[in-house]
Amino acid sequence: MERITPRTLSGFMELLPASQAQMDAVMDVLRRTYALYGFSSIDTPAVEAAEVLLAKGGGETEKQIYRFARGDSDLALRFDLTVPLAKYVAMNYGRLTFPFRRYQIGKVYRGERAQRGRFREFYQADIDVIGDGKLDIANDAEMPAVICEVFRRLGLERFCIRINSRKVLNGLFEYLGVPDPVNVMGAVDKLEKIGRDKVAALLTDLGMAPGQAAELLDILSAPDPMGALEPLAGKCPALAEGLAELKAVTDLLPGLGVPDDKWRVDLTIARGLDYYTGTVYETQLLDYPEVGSVCSGGRYDDLAGYYTDKKLPGVGLSIGVTRLFYILQEQGLLNEALSTAPCDALVIPLGDDPAYAVRCAAVLRAAGVRTQVYTEKRKVKAKFAYADKLAIPYAVVVGSDEEAAGTVGLKDLRSGSQTAVTADAAAALILDSLKDPARPVKEKEI
Amino acid sequence: MERITPRTLSGFMELLPASQAQMDAVMDVLRRTYALYGFSSIDTPAVEAAEVLLAKGGGETEKQIYRFARGDSDLALRFDLTVPLAKYVAMNYGRLTFPFRRYQIGKVYRGERAQRGRFREFYQADIDVIGDGKLDIANDAEMPAVICEVFRRLGLERFCIRINSRKVLNGLFEYLGVPDPVNVMGAVDKLEKIGRDKVAALLTDLGMAPGQAAELLDILSAPDPMGALEPLAGKCPALAEGLAELKAVTDLLPGLGVPDDKWRVDLTIARGLDYYTGTVYETQLLDYPEVGSVCSGGRYDDLAGYYTDKKLPGVGLSIGVTRLFYILQEQGLLNEALSTAPCDALVIPLGDDPAYAVRCAAVLRAAGVRTQVYTEKRKVKAKFAYADKLAIPYAVVVGSDEEAAGTVGLKDLRSGSQTAVTADAAAALILDSLKDPARPVKEKEI
Repeated sequence: MERITPRTLSGFMELLPASQAQMDAVMDVLRRTYALYGFSSIDTPAVEAAEVLLAKGGGETEKQIYRFARGDSDLALRFDLTVPLAKYVAMNYGRLTFPFRRYQIGKVYRGERAQRGRFREFYQADIDVIGDGKLDIANDAEMPAVICEVFRRLGLERFCIRINSRKVLNGLFEYLGVPDPVNVMGAVDKLEKIGRDKVAALLTDLGMAPGQAAELLDILSAPDPMGALEPLAGKCPALAEGLAELKAVTDLLPGLGVPDDKWRVDLTIARGLDYYTGTVYETQLLDYPEVGSVCSGGRYDDLAGYYTDKKLPGVGLSIGVTRLFYILQEQGLLNEALSTAPCDALVIPLGDDPAYAVRCAAVLRAAGVRTQVYTEKRKVKAKFAYADKLAIPYAVVVGSDEEAAGTVGLKDLRSGSQTAVTADAAAALILDSLKDPARPVKEKEI
Repeated sequence: MERITPRTLSGFMELLPASQAQMDAVMDVLRRTYALYGFSSIDTPAVEAAEVLLAKGGGETEKQIYRFARGDSDLALRFDLTVPLAKYVAMNYGRLTFPFRRYQIGKVYRGERAQRGRFREFYQADIDVIGDGKLDIANDAEMPAVICEVFRRLGLERFCIRINSRKVLNGLFEYLGVPDPVNVMGAVDKLEKIGRDKVAALLTDLGMAPGQAAELLDILSAPDPMGALEPLAGKCPALAEGLAELKAVTDLLPGLGVPDDKWRVDLTIARGLDYYTGTVYETQLLDYPEVGSVCSGGRYDDLAGYYTDKKLPGVGLSIGVTRLFYILQEQGLLNEALSTAPCDALVIPLGDDPAYAVRCAAVLRAAGVRTQVYTEKRKVKAKFAYADKLAIPYAVVVGSDEEAAGTVGLKDLRSGSQTAVTADAAAALILDSLKDPARPVKEKEI
């Protein structure tokens, strides 16, 4: 037979089973935490009509999208979960209850240039709250609370959520009489990346006087940015409105359980140039600033204007799960205390007849123990080696003596200790030892 | 703005949130049950090199596959999870531990003609056990046990797993001196669909004498098929070997917890013509025979011969989840007692300040109650109407009186009863009432 070399495309993550178990644990935290905050899950197709996905237009998107014809159909793979959400809400407007809170975790596709740590197929995990006509600012405060809880449950502690408001920035630009607010916002967004001097140069290129640019940069970099803006707010209603919203958001954070050291107002983040209209978020891993934001989002006035005349304001955030997982793996932050074994117990028949082993396994499974029976006819040593290789924590050894006594030999493969107990008792012991599973991430000692 | 009509492609399932909650419950049963039997999850890309996916060749597949070029790459969407498994095992052979037990639940793509109940994007949920060189027959017995447990946990009771062995069929054909075994097997596979007379005609067309065809059909349709084969086995070693395997499988089923009324040997099922080499399975919903098998699989000698010279025998099965869900929905079998609400408790602030509400919600969530705060500034009646529309079971009502007393008004929205308790006590009461969630399926009364 002529053979084809098996391979996986570059830029497409495919994990070995133990790593996949770690990824699954991360996904599980995301799903559970999103659900805990009352978000409904939805699942939209990975393939859509290209016309629908590209309704909004846009340069980078159009270049990166996987688009293809089938028969008369012009199809494409989704490149994010926001456009499919807009389609879904516009299509189902009359059948949804607003505010509509949805989460979606799914694969998206971007034909980027392949490079280490960049993926062409990757998971996004999004939450959004969509209002019908209007949406209260309290929803903007909930977003950092959800991020914070997700990271805490993952085991990540060393992060900071940066919060800003584009209304505040626009108000400030108006107050200062900035000549080209759209491009000034773009320049400001680069402050962390290229530094104050280069941004100042960009700002003067955009027509700002050097003194005006310095004043803007002083305010943006103030240690207490909201305090610095307060005296100016009285002189500019747009700034006052933005500041009131930002204050409403930050005032709610303690009650929502977001500790003070996990967030800060940062007037320099702006999140690209279109789409967002109010609160914006970025999240940094403190020890890995170079990886950029691992969870971003914000408030928008109009989710689906290119599909419907209904005004649908919303606020949301997105975690790039594949990239986050890649970083955790690369940095050695994944917790080796998290079990990645395919099962909790391997039932090992000492002889060749699996009948009693199979019955014991049924008892273990009924109690909730993830159980495999080793059914291959090999030497007992090989059977234990299998458990060892897969880091299975318990062996349940059964031979004719055990069958006669109605017991099993429960062996803790980490400690080596063995006891003769009933299968029911073995199940209880195993479940008890596994009842506090480790979190997916262990952060390095500082 | 020019508007695009939002639409979802025909043949692509997209559910409203309450239906999605039912689908999620089905998926959750699948994942948990597969894990309970010690299967590891893997996740392979939806996009692969076309050359890799089509390594095996095959007519229908090649016609239905979504294939497209990007730059120099010839790409395709996967059309099943078996070919990606073969690729994965062949690629990672040295890094896997055998027997390798994997489950995978993922979307696959087939450009079939669109018709009601047929999907172009659909979920498959597969399990397979792959041996290195050989694999014990006991694994073949475990497959029906897994199906049975999946269906029991879903709430489906009226099903039957049909088990056969292609070795038995081939042995029987050899014993009878059947002229064209491959096509005879294809004819036999149609017995249920087209009836005995038409199959008899096909068999004579294939060169069988009418008496020989009648003898074959008598054996295949015998009420006790294994009993009918027993006396013939001594005269044909191939048949004896097949029968011994089939007996080994069926003998283990009671110990594996598969009740007698949930399976039977059916010599007429053959599962297509290539690929499978031993045990085969089909699963029928007894009340809906017209929908065909909802869970099928079997034993194969060689998973990945088109990628590797390693001999990798295996046994597996696949559930077409999207189609199964569609059938359950169409037949009214989904359980309305299963909660499809986005949360367990809606915290309703009586006034406009959400601060106390948000603190109470944090207490509820910390205890594990899925909680939303209703933060829109609307009349109290509208807030309750929201809970009602979404079938949220509990309202947690908080006003200034409750804040002063450090309590909440816990209202059971199904019974209408309300009590004043602390947020902690409310959490405990809610969790207790939700501790036995309904199964996804309710079968009709017979």
